[in-house]
Amino acid sequence: MSEKSRMKKVSVFRKEHFNAAHRLHNPDLSDTENVKIFGKCNNANYHGHNYDLTVKLMGEVDATTGYVYDMKLLSDIIKENILDRFDHKNLNLDVKEFESLNPTAENIAITIYEILKSKIEPRYEIKIFLYETERNFVEYPAD
Amino acid sequence: MSEKSRMKKVSVFRKEHFNAAHRLHNPDLSDTENVKIFGKCNNANYHGHNYDLTVKLMGEVDATTGYVYDMKLLSDIIKENILDRFDHKNLNLDVKEFESLNPTAENIAITIYEILKSKIEPRYEIKIFLYETERNFVEYPAD
Amino acid sequence: MSEKSRMKKVSVFRKEHFNAAHRLHNPDLSDTENVKIFGKCNNANYHGHNYDLTVKLMGEVDATTGYVYDMKLLSDIIKENILDRFDHKNLNLDVKEFESLNPTAENIAITIYEILKSKIEPRYEIKIFLYETERNFVEYPAD
Amino acid sequence: MSEKSRMKKVSVFRKEHFNAAHRLHNPDLSDTENVKIFGKCNNANYHGHNYDLTVKLMGEVDATTGYVYDMKLLSDIIKENILDRFDHKNLNLDVKEFESLNPTAENIAITIYEILKSKIEPRYEIKIFLYETERNFVEYPAD
Amino acid sequence: MSEKSRMKKVSVFRKEHFNAAHRLHNPDLSDTENVKIFGKCNNANYHGHNYDLTVKLMGEVDATTGYVYDMKLLSDIIKENILDRFDHKNLNLDVKEFESLNPTAENIAITIYEILKSKIEPRYEIKIFLYETERNFVEYPAD
Amino acid sequence: MSEKSRMKKVSVFRKEHFNAAHRLHNPDLSDTENVKIFGKCNNANYHGHNYDLTVKLMGEVDATTGYVYDMKLLSDIIKENILDRFDHKNLNLDVKEFESLNPTAENIAITIYEILKSKIEPRYEIKIFLYETERNFVEYPAD
Repeated sequence: MSEKSRMKKVSVFRKEHFNAAHRLHNPDLSDTENVKIFGKCNNANYHGHNYDLTVKLMGEVDATTGYVYDMKLLSDIIKENILDRFDHKNLNLDVKEFESLNPTAENIAITIYEILKSKIEPRYEIKIFLYETERNFVEYPAD
Repeated sequence: MSEKSRMKKVSVFRKEHFNAAHRLHNPDLSDTENVKIFGKCNNANYHGHNYDLTVKLMGEVDATTGYVYDMKLLSDIIKENILDRFDHKNLNLDVKEFESLNPTAENIAITIYEILKSKIEPRYEIKIFLYETERNFVEYPAD
Repeated sequence: MSEKSRMKKVSVFRKEHFNAAHRLHNPDLSDTENVKIFGKCNNANYHGHNYDLTVKLMGEVDATTGYVYDMKLLSDIIKENILDRFDHKNLNLDVKEFESLNPTAENIAITIYEILKSKIEPRYEIKIFLYETERNFVEYPAD
Repeated sequence: MSEKSRMKKVSVFRKEHFNAAHRLHNPDLSDTENVKIFGKCNNANYHGHNYDLTVKLMGEVDATTGYVYDMKLLSDIIKENILDRFDHKNLNLDVKEFESLNPTAENIAITIYEILKSKIEPRYEIKIFLYETERNFVEYPAD
Repeated sequence: MSEKSRMKKVSVFRKEHFNAAHRLHNPDLSDTENVKIFGKCNNANYHGHNYDLTVKLMGEVDATTGYVYDMKLLSDIIKENILDRFDHKNLNLDVKEFESLNPTAENIAITIYEILKSKIEPRYEIKIFLYETERNFVEYPAD
Repeated sequence: MSEKSRMKKVSVFRKEHFNAAHRLHNPDLSDTENVKIFGKCNNANYHGHNYDLTVKLMGEVDATTGYVYDMKLLSDIIKENILDRFDHKNLNLDVKEFESLNPTAENIAITIYEILKSKIEPRYEIKIFLYETERNFVEYPAD
């Protein structure tokens, strides 16, 4: 196998998705303030989204495999730690990280980052892209 | 204006979308049966989707305008009768048509068809395409 | 070569695109009527679109090639007869078919159908799908 | 459960994909004829595609479930009978149906149709859409 | 509300679109030079595009709302300052910024950046992605 | 022509695609190790992909043209140096760069970068995005 790929930094991306209900609401604010800030997203009975999640992982290409990271393993880590806990769930009621954290796209992305960061070796930098709709999406950490 | 377009039947399509929570559940069945049939979609706390809705309308091209139908008007009819009632809602709890009808993609499509059919002149045939996810979608009426 | 594919009717689709300016306007109507009917699309200085064009061609699978039609040939016919005449053009000013025909999506689709129909052997049925935007598209002939 | 959905015919669609190598070649023709007909697709060392497969299934909505068909079951049938046999394979060398059948998009769609037709109850009509690329796709049976 | 999201920098993105006519032309050059440089894009009668515009805004997550920025407000700012002035317009003739500036994708992106930068508080960094077609797009400022 | 665009750094992107067969295999490893590492991608008869390739090029906007780079020229350089050599080919057997380099997405992206880097003036920074599937893609150089 050629040494060509040694020490080259490449980013690899894996796209997954989950479907969840949520409601944007801050219990420290009045009902009027919540409606003013969150509008339709404050609906007491929840609404939902097909969330598209892309995880970016940056590292060096391994000279033996030609991989930065085994994408099957990355997919499995996302599945076990994120999809199995978030997919077909109510984020406010079913996912403990959002018991006292408003499940905005920003906070969901930060939460996913922190969960995955703890499961992936620290030599890899990771970044989260979360699409709430085709027209609204977020990136964490920002650059 | 040319007579060229007179009496030609063309289908026009308008794509809209809404974000909603739902739960698949038949109260006439036991909890065990509901889980067996609906799996993750039976989650008591609901989950949600970005529904993509395409309405097809078939008719003759008007010789004066070159239009089958004013797409702004079609969009307004969809907005007033479907999006304003379904978007950012819990289909089971907030939309009266699903009080006793299971909000599967099939039943949502039939319901949207029936609502729009009553708002659009009968000389136009219509058809509903509803995407629950990129990989699961339905068409009503079937052909 | 197996006889398996003989006499099976398959539809094949080829997607192309072109970028054009247009204006919706009927000279037989007053300016006020034109604005009322066509709104922003009546802008005297034109606006434009990336048109996505899909041509469907239905026929029997040839037992020797396993093709309904040579897709390279279909692409070439579309290129020569449609793209070379419509792409990077002003439909109202540069394309003779629209000298006296309002270039609505409906009329563009009918025009493309008639041009291609005359270039393709009559044993093949064809159909045109024209996307003016991701959210507004038409099909001709309707079915 | 409402009777509303009884006897309504709805089409449901499931989208899957597989990645495969293939080569277009008819052993009954000369090498020159093969190159003339199939061009780059005749490359002796094969090339490949990400095939997008959509299966349409038409039937009546079941009044108890609100489903035409269990989409999880449809996905499993496609996975077991098509993906497990076609994905990450060389269609010409690894899939017995193409031992003597040229793996054009047309013939792959017909083959998938015949496999799935035998696995799904005859009261359901099915149809196959196969995308070889974003710009070339086929439908079988044609309508 | 948890303090968890305080001081985390997140980028949020909002996608909008507009349809416009334009022509690439530098009046300081000869007609021959203009054709040589701009090719089909120099057509005197204009052509057009569906421009997809994504605005990226980077900032800290607000601990009260869980938002970096109210996406409804961002959408309204884009609508009022860009879409209402560019959509269904001829960029060369109808938009004053391009009276003496060639409306290439690069210059349109820089212009949109400068307009929006002046409307959004300076503590937020912004970036513009402009798709002229699916295959040609630009980013400003570059990084 | 306005001086407005002088000295602004903009990134321009051009999207192309090619269809190729490949096999992931390291001859220095045992067959068992190859299957363990590369799984289905190790299939001895190859499989294939529709690769989507986006080339990013960063530079200053030219005050005369309003362009960073002539996109037609960029497309031609990609066509001549990448597509003509990779499209409808078997990467392992037909492309000399992969004679002793495993054609993972990472290594294909690095190879494309190095080829194009040598063809484009050094004052432009370039970056490669390569989609092996909609869900697996890579970026080189990483940032």
